[in-house]
Amino acid sequence: MSTVPAAPTASIDLNADLGEGFGRWRLTDDEELLSVVTSANVACGFHAGDAVTMRRVCDRAAERGVRIGAQVSYRDLAGFGRRAMDVPPDELAAEVAYQIGALEVFARAAGTRVSYVKPHGALYNRVVSDEEQARAVVDGVLLADASLPVLGLPGSRLLERAEKAGLPPVTEAFADRAYTDEGTLVPRGSDGAVVTEADAVVERSVGMARSGVVTSHGGREIAVRARSLCLHGDTPGAVGLARRVRARLEAAGVRVAAFV
Amino acid sequence: MSTVPAAPTASIDLNADLGEGFGRWRLTDDEELLSVVTSANVACGFHAGDAVTMRRVCDRAAERGVRIGAQVSYRDLAGFGRRAMDVPPDELAAEVAYQIGALEVFARAAGTRVSYVKPHGALYNRVVSDEEQARAVVDGVLLADASLPVLGLPGSRLLERAEKAGLPPVTEAFADRAYTDEGTLVPRGSDGAVVTEADAVVERSVGMARSGVVTSHGGREIAVRARSLCLHGDTPGAVGLARRVRARLEAAGVRVAAFV
Amino acid sequence: MSTVPAAPTASIDLNADLGEGFGRWRLTDDEELLSVVTSANVACGFHAGDAVTMRRVCDRAAERGVRIGAQVSYRDLAGFGRRAMDVPPDELAAEVAYQIGALEVFARAAGTRVSYVKPHGALYNRVVSDEEQARAVVDGVLLADASLPVLGLPGSRLLERAEKAGLPPVTEAFADRAYTDEGTLVPRGSDGAVVTEADAVVERSVGMARSGVVTSHGGREIAVRARSLCLHGDTPGAVGLARRVRARLEAAGVRVAAFV
Amino acid sequence: MSTVPAAPTASIDLNADLGEGFGRWRLTDDEELLSVVTSANVACGFHAGDAVTMRRVCDRAAERGVRIGAQVSYRDLAGFGRRAMDVPPDELAAEVAYQIGALEVFARAAGTRVSYVKPHGALYNRVVSDEEQARAVVDGVLLADASLPVLGLPGSRLLERAEKAGLPPVTEAFADRAYTDEGTLVPRGSDGAVVTEADAVVERSVGMARSGVVTSHGGREIAVRARSLCLHGDTPGAVGLARRVRARLEAAGVRVAAFV
Repeated sequence: MSTVPAAPTASIDLNADLGEGFGRWRLTDDEELLSVVTSANVACGFHAGDAVTMRRVCDRAAERGVRIGAQVSYRDLAGFGRRAMDVPPDELAAEVAYQIGALEVFARAAGTRVSYVKPHGALYNRVVSDEEQARAVVDGVLLADASLPVLGLPGSRLLERAEKAGLPPVTEAFADRAYTDEGTLVPRGSDGAVVTEADAVVERSVGMARSGVVTSHGGREIAVRARSLCLHGDTPGAVGLARRVRARLEAAGVRVAAFV
Repeated sequence: MSTVPAAPTASIDLNADLGEGFGRWRLTDDEELLSVVTSANVACGFHAGDAVTMRRVCDRAAERGVRIGAQVSYRDLAGFGRRAMDVPPDELAAEVAYQIGALEVFARAAGTRVSYVKPHGALYNRVVSDEEQARAVVDGVLLADASLPVLGLPGSRLLERAEKAGLPPVTEAFADRAYTDEGTLVPRGSDGAVVTEADAVVERSVGMARSGVVTSHGGREIAVRARSLCLHGDTPGAVGLARRVRARLEAAGVRVAAFV
Repeated sequence: MSTVPAAPTASIDLNADLGEGFGRWRLTDDEELLSVVTSANVACGFHAGDAVTMRRVCDRAAERGVRIGAQVSYRDLAGFGRRAMDVPPDELAAEVAYQIGALEVFARAAGTRVSYVKPHGALYNRVVSDEEQARAVVDGVLLADASLPVLGLPGSRLLERAEKAGLPPVTEAFADRAYTDEGTLVPRGSDGAVVTEADAVVERSVGMARSGVVTSHGGREIAVRARSLCLHGDTPGAVGLARRVRARLEAAGVRVAAFV
Repeated sequence: MSTVPAAPTASIDLNADLGEGFGRWRLTDDEELLSVVTSANVACGFHAGDAVTMRRVCDRAAERGVRIGAQVSYRDLAGFGRRAMDVPPDELAAEVAYQIGALEVFARAAGTRVSYVKPHGALYNRVVSDEEQARAVVDGVLLADASLPVLGLPGSRLLERAEKAGLPPVTEAFADRAYTDEGTLVPRGSDGAVVTEADAVVERSVGMARSGVVTSHGGREIAVRARSLCLHGDTPGAVGLARRVRARLEAAGVRVAAFV
């Protein structure tokens, strides 16, 4: 990834994780988020997401014209999919396909379809660099639907593998995460890894969407080319911030629209 | 259900439960069963059936031209779906749809599709008479695919509801279960509920398939009209017996073929 | 249960459900509740309650001198233990014992012990009248510790069975639930089943604790003899109301103390 | 670990994994294994092991005087605990304690107690070298019972940590696994990692037990000092082989007895 400023982006997609409750438990404010985002990453039952919630989120998303994506995960309700697992490739591929198929039923019943796939949590992080698991995720997507776009980090093994397999790779960026001079994410847990100041998050969003540029942790202007911005909805104030990001993007002349 | 002999059946379907392992555990001899049956009730992950097994069974069934059915269940791995549960209708409907969708992905990847739905275990028994759960199962099938046949007991609430909703009802009979004079199953646990003698099972199969008649527990000739015979594969010797049933049916001039 | 006013109760226990999150999900405000109640019904992992939460709640309860009870449940995370299940008695007994043992380890590590058992949700309701399951729960408690008190509804099969088996039965009442003239709970879902007005809940608590009397749904004064009052902590404002109940009880001269 | 022959061992413990079914599924022939081993590693519900099975195995083990050990695992029924997981230390410690506590209830009900702890599958392998997880397992054991011996590989981080924490470390060896010249196990998947020839397994068992010596993969005599030999019971013929090993050990004058 070069540090030369990228060409301006006329249009940006906004994605967020939705439906991340399970049974009695709720986490995300799905109704509110659906009024902000253009793409909904719907939990499919492996880290979160019961069938009733999946159905409701698909219905609401379809009503609003929000795209539905399968947020696939390791099978780990107790750890919310945040614990990396050494899952053999054939198991991982089949489990990815299983989750996409389960969600597809609710998307179809709502008059639409699953439009993309995005790995969740530890799996998302693992397939940045783990060739074997990246390939397994892509194999799972191919099993389910050989035309589905895959959402991930620019430069990740996942997007490389997806592209080679003929699945459209979709890059995403995080306005609330710090980037290194090389354009990778500052690891969670490091100082300043998360941008907590709301105004900064809003301004970074606009910069990323308009000029494909953000200020790195080291103070340099770097290119972060992304078709989609990931917003968060599971912390207090998160929905309000997401709403501000969208309003500011639109005020700055950026077209907010799904990537498909 | 009358006790007047039914018209001869020219053709019979043979169905059995397959893929009922989970992870490290195996239960059914799937390869062998697939060489006998014409319809495979594939476990979908709620009482049994991991994603790798679902994929493999779908691949093998498709190779052999065996129809794939979704064997939907209560969410109960610990109880193998054999414990009746008071699941609210909206949850049950969504869970049924979820399971069908998950299986559909593997059926499609194998070049075929899910061709029918059959409830498993305690759910199967419950929807014989429970109007609310029968309706919920049908709602779940409708969510997934409004053209899917539903397999169940003749006279069950499930088949009534399916028919009203436009889903083709498919009746099944059990050659290894005793019937009352009224044509219902003698409850498990009662004396003589299960026919254990192999020759008797074979002869009852032929009688059911050819003339739609079987001798009741009370010694009367009763009508058991069924499009499909359910064979069992999870006990020692079961596959051998299934094989004998099929051979004897064919020798008696019955056409063994899927109902769809 | 007679409608003659019971003798005044000098002392009352306050119990509430705690630790009802799972992994990433939280439900109850455990810290706040522990400053109000004298007995904590800790979820043991079957309907809610991961191991980290169980440990933390036990540690905090021990610090405050709050008694720890095992809140045992059907194995049903997806349904939060609120769906009645036909669990065979040997399975239910073993599962009850398993949950008590798992909690005991954290209670002991905190320098105390499990002091009682209370069934949760659908199991609680079932053992009011289901003889077989009541017996199974008692068998499970006996497996774990033949001296443990059992908390339940007055007149329930559970408390009858517990008493016969030598386990101290502990009666509880609900200040926020309506009672029939016969002293049983008005079923949830019926009109007026839940008392929602905060002042009424507070006054009913005092009446129950001081004189063992409450006004029934039909307007009669009836006896509700209980060693413990159950408070709820999983709805907005619930902790504040629980706090008011305790303050009002103490102001009315009632001693608030654990029953053991 | 030196290659100088160790002093003869007068006595050896034989351990095996038991109770590794779940609900409807069975894996190990528990009855047969209990007639061979002196220590039973009982699955505690996280990779296998339902409550009914745990109870039955504890009852049978107690009748035969076989020691009961807690076979603790990652929470992973779908993967049978064979997939390494990055579980945070506080979660892992609490989950280990939870499992020990659950088993303790059945051991106590059978008139005995949990006598040791042995990690299962991927966790067993991970704590050979993963300092953080080794420490977490030891913390979990300490939470449950600060006197429990811990079974593991000689030289593993687990046994080092156990010893530092005051938990008796117990070394084990595998007669059916090849060893490197350095005394470590040849990794599964490598050529010759598993010794499949029954006579060789029997002879290696006797060599290990009598003289603490085994022939390495490279053909050298190396020391494998172990208090316990691990036998396997989950493959066809495994129980017969285990029985031969025990008979041959006794014929060679080795005392077969639990290490505690």
